[in-house]
Amino acid sequence: MSDSDTTTGSAGTEGNDSYGHKPFKRSRSHFADRITADGRDGWPVEAGRYRLVVSRACPWASRALVSRRLLGLEDALSLAVADPIQDDRSWRFTLDPDGADPVLGIHHLSEAYDAREHGYPGGVSVPAIVDVPSGKLVTNDYQQITLDLATEWTALHRPGAPDLYPEPLRAEIDEVMEGIYRDVNNGVYKAGFASSQQEYDAAYEALFARLDEASARLADRRYLVGDTITEADIRFFTTLVRFDPVYHGHFKCNRNKLAEDPVLWAYARDLYQTPGFGDTVDFDHIKRHYYQVHTGINPTGIVPLGPDLSRWTTPHHRAQLGGRPFGDGTPPGPVPPGERVPPAHTV
Amino acid sequence: MSDSDTTTGSAGTEGNDSYGHKPFKRSRSHFADRITADGRDGWPVEAGRYRLVVSRACPWASRALVSRRLLGLEDALSLAVADPIQDDRSWRFTLDPDGADPVLGIHHLSEAYDAREHGYPGGVSVPAIVDVPSGKLVTNDYQQITLDLATEWTALHRPGAPDLYPEPLRAEIDEVMEGIYRDVNNGVYKAGFASSQQEYDAAYEALFARLDEASARLADRRYLVGDTITEADIRFFTTLVRFDPVYHGHFKCNRNKLAEDPVLWAYARDLYQTPGFGDTVDFDHIKRHYYQVHTGINPTGIVPLGPDLSRWTTPHHRAQLGGRPFGDGTPPGPVPPGERVPPAHTV
Repeated sequence: MSDSDTTTGSAGTEGNDSYGHKPFKRSRSHFADRITADGRDGWPVEAGRYRLVVSRACPWASRALVSRRLLGLEDALSLAVADPIQDDRSWRFTLDPDGADPVLGIHHLSEAYDAREHGYPGGVSVPAIVDVPSGKLVTNDYQQITLDLATEWTALHRPGAPDLYPEPLRAEIDEVMEGIYRDVNNGVYKAGFASSQQEYDAAYEALFARLDEASARLADRRYLVGDTITEADIRFFTTLVRFDPVYHGHFKCNRNKLAEDPVLWAYARDLYQTPGFGDTVDFDHIKRHYYQVHTGINPTGIVPLGPDLSRWTTPHHRAQLGGRPFGDGTPPGPVPPGERVPPAHTV
Repeated sequence: MSDSDTTTGSAGTEGNDSYGHKPFKRSRSHFADRITADGRDGWPVEAGRYRLVVSRACPWASRALVSRRLLGLEDALSLAVADPIQDDRSWRFTLDPDGADPVLGIHHLSEAYDAREHGYPGGVSVPAIVDVPSGKLVTNDYQQITLDLATEWTALHRPGAPDLYPEPLRAEIDEVMEGIYRDVNNGVYKAGFASSQQEYDAAYEALFARLDEASARLADRRYLVGDTITEADIRFFTTLVRFDPVYHGHFKCNRNKLAEDPVLWAYARDLYQTPGFGDTVDFDHIKRHYYQVHTGINPTGIVPLGPDLSRWTTPHHRAQLGGRPFGDGTPPGPVPPGERVPPAHTV
């Protein structure tokens, strides 16, 4: 990862109502311990030991959802899904019986933060990985989590898991991800939470310049880097899938819809229809989170009924560009029954 | 006009910040005197006597702008254009030298209301027609103004002016306009200023049902009623032209963009490209008004840079449906020099 990625990262301010009132700046991840094969930070990769906490609303957490599916880590790394609407103690487990995560036994993710560092004054963010035996947060470093799932958790990958961060392509992947991070992943937030017209204008221009660049790049190649799905595609996807339902209107990223860019729209549908991508997406959680939590930019909390999402499953014709989605590997199997997104929340 | 039109009409609450906080209800026009050929309300049609006050931002006022152009009434009925951003005294003439309308000599439209009825407690709305000699407001009845321009001001119409409200088609025009008024013209406001999810949902469903109906109707006919441009097209147009720039995002009317409905998009472009329609449209005024005035739903006041408007001038291919835009008449001449919308505000 480049410096600019690792120093600006954190999903910590997701849902912070103070958003629209000061220049938007994503805060740095505070807990950056890594879970590695050699356990050098004290957290060795181990099946069944850790719990991944996400919100399906959050693009940063959704990266980990996709990686975990593609790599077949569902059994090794269990999953807790937070309610898309935070309360004043942030992410909570109100979707679970009695409002408590059945494995960690906590009602709010903040309890795992407190177990790690008492009185931690920063924000509570997803994705988070919690050590189940101690109940302590290990990491909320969303820029590193997926890279470690791809490169450190290999012993626990399913047979046929793809290489999402192939060594020979890392420099190119990092470079592509850096521009997309700054102008797209984070860029939509800079536009949406701009505190001045000038700040918004700059974010908007950078966003669409970067999208145009990606669109040109993807016109004749199926994936962003190499000819297989990589980390770069995962990171781009989790923003693109939210573009028309949320960023276009709520964040004023409205030069055009994703659905009006033939290349990016086909690219996004191709990924959506690939096992491991679309099956992690909960449009209900996405829409309710953004529109109900960000009262600073949507005071009524009313959630738009649009857009029509039925076109996400239409043919994309991207296979004719070639590419080998999983390289020498295979697609992941079906979603574990307990993790299926309710049909009413999908397209 | 049907009862449901005349009892719900008025643009009086345009820009009322209390919008998002109570169920949206458009107030009735208070000043409903009519300017007629026979002068029965005391206001006879007379060249040079009256002044039409509009905001180019307002869809209700923009109807009168289009009618006046199509009928060639520019010399007979002069025009005052208000600043798209009201202040606490409502519509004002800050676009004019010294902030005063050069003909009426007033700074705020409210002064003409006061001259008519001192201490009038209601809202100040456009369109408004003011009697120049007395400085008094004559009417703000936007549902009647355009019908009277079409049917009472005939002696002052240009040669070749179309019949915008043809006698044999009035019942059908009224019926079409009634549904479009309720579900589209006013429906977008009901969606945008809904105070509950339920209220929004109902407005959204009715809006898109009515748009689908209109789209089906217009698939094989060039205009809404008959084979010429009528009042019904004018009223539909002034909402459609604001759809993607404002209503889609700001009012959450986002099942799809106008540009995603091939029939309605071509229909709207056909009208836009017809002299008298597009040459009245000021996209800058439209966007700044809605996004800066309605702080109840857009607290930051930031105005989106999108959408890309360049496609408004692309070929529409609607001529192949036949139709005679101006019937036995002719298109209007060029816009008078003093009334041209600055190029930076158009597409």
